[in-house]
Amino acid sequence: MLTKAEITKKYIIETVAPIFNRKGYTATSMTDITGATGLTKGAIYGNFENKEELAIAAFHKNVNDLLLEIAKYQEKSKSPLQKLLLITDFYRNYFEYSTKLGGCPILNMGVDSNNQETALLEEVKNVIAKTQHNIAKLIEWGKEVGEIKQAIVAQNFAKQMYIHIQGAIFMSLTMDDPKYLQLAMDELESLIKSEIAS
Amino acid sequence: MLTKAEITKKYIIETVAPIFNRKGYTATSMTDITGATGLTKGAIYGNFENKEELAIAAFHKNVNDLLLEIAKYQEKSKSPLQKLLLITDFYRNYFEYSTKLGGCPILNMGVDSNNQETALLEEVKNVIAKTQHNIAKLIEWGKEVGEIKQAIVAQNFAKQMYIHIQGAIFMSLTMDDPKYLQLAMDELESLIKSEIAS
Repeated sequence: MLTKAEITKKYIIETVAPIFNRKGYTATSMTDITGATGLTKGAIYGNFENKEELAIAAFHKNVNDLLLEIAKYQEKSKSPLQKLLLITDFYRNYFEYSTKLGGCPILNMGVDSNNQETALLEEVKNVIAKTQHNIAKLIEWGKEVGEIKQAIVAQNFAKQMYIHIQGAIFMSLTMDDPKYLQLAMDELESLIKSEIAS
Repeated sequence: MLTKAEITKKYIIETVAPIFNRKGYTATSMTDITGATGLTKGAIYGNFENKEELAIAAFHKNVNDLLLEIAKYQEKSKSPLQKLLLITDFYRNYFEYSTKLGGCPILNMGVDSNNQETALLEEVKNVIAKTQHNIAKLIEWGKEVGEIKQAIVAQNFAKQMYIHIQGAIFMSLTMDDPKYLQLAMDELESLIKSEIAS
């Protein structure tokens, strides 16, 4: 069971997560935070050392929701090759999904933290490195069970998947047009089936 | 010849362009602008109606520099297919190039203006639509002169090029690793040579 302090902390994170995601670190003010939560500045600082600590917690909440959703898609198959294809299925619906979150947390926080030089950049890099590593592990597993060609360099293909995904997210959200995500996922699906499947 | 007023305006735009590009619209303060230019707030507002008008001028300056540089690469050949390949050559060197600009103006202003809901978003969309249209025209030209397959849908391939380019820029700049741009341009080059060249 959660303590009262933990419940408050959770409530603050869940309330501010879409705000930080939408507005970015610098543009999110203490007034935005107190306004949305209905708590005083003192109550916020009683739970988080500073704005940066709160922004990092909000980012991790958004990313965890995203990763849980992808994991749900991946549960639909036990085959590593199929699990890769299920990632493309998830991103075909990402236009609607990310709108609910206030945009893509990786894209928004990646650009924002890089430009503002905040501690969030290291968090974004860690999340990308970790998820990229997980895709590479799926590819290695596919090689072991003979579903994926031995010659495929797992780390490179994982990077290529990330390029397609984040490029399509940026284009679809900026141009307000889901077509980019469809095109990129078509291309990625065809790459997986024709270039890496054995 | 430029008038004194035009020289001042040009000086302001050139000075603030990398600042807006790096920090984004909201996080760039009047203090940043007066500090960098050495001009008073009154002098700035004597030349630009408001911060938004200045931010739009700064964005167009960055984009024009970028488009001029790409045009220089494209002059190296008279063949539309080669001109497409020369775009990939330009982006192989984009990691170094964009660092000088304070990041990629399309990526930074696209994410920032979408999140902050500023008038800049329309400007970013127009630039993307226009350059995408120019790529599509190159493809149509290639089809006319028999360098590119008739079945290729020019608008779709132009969108795919944009996805590769902006995805790789986001990944390389966020992860501080030029490898993503190399991988994406290798893939794009091979797509152009094997899928669309006739």
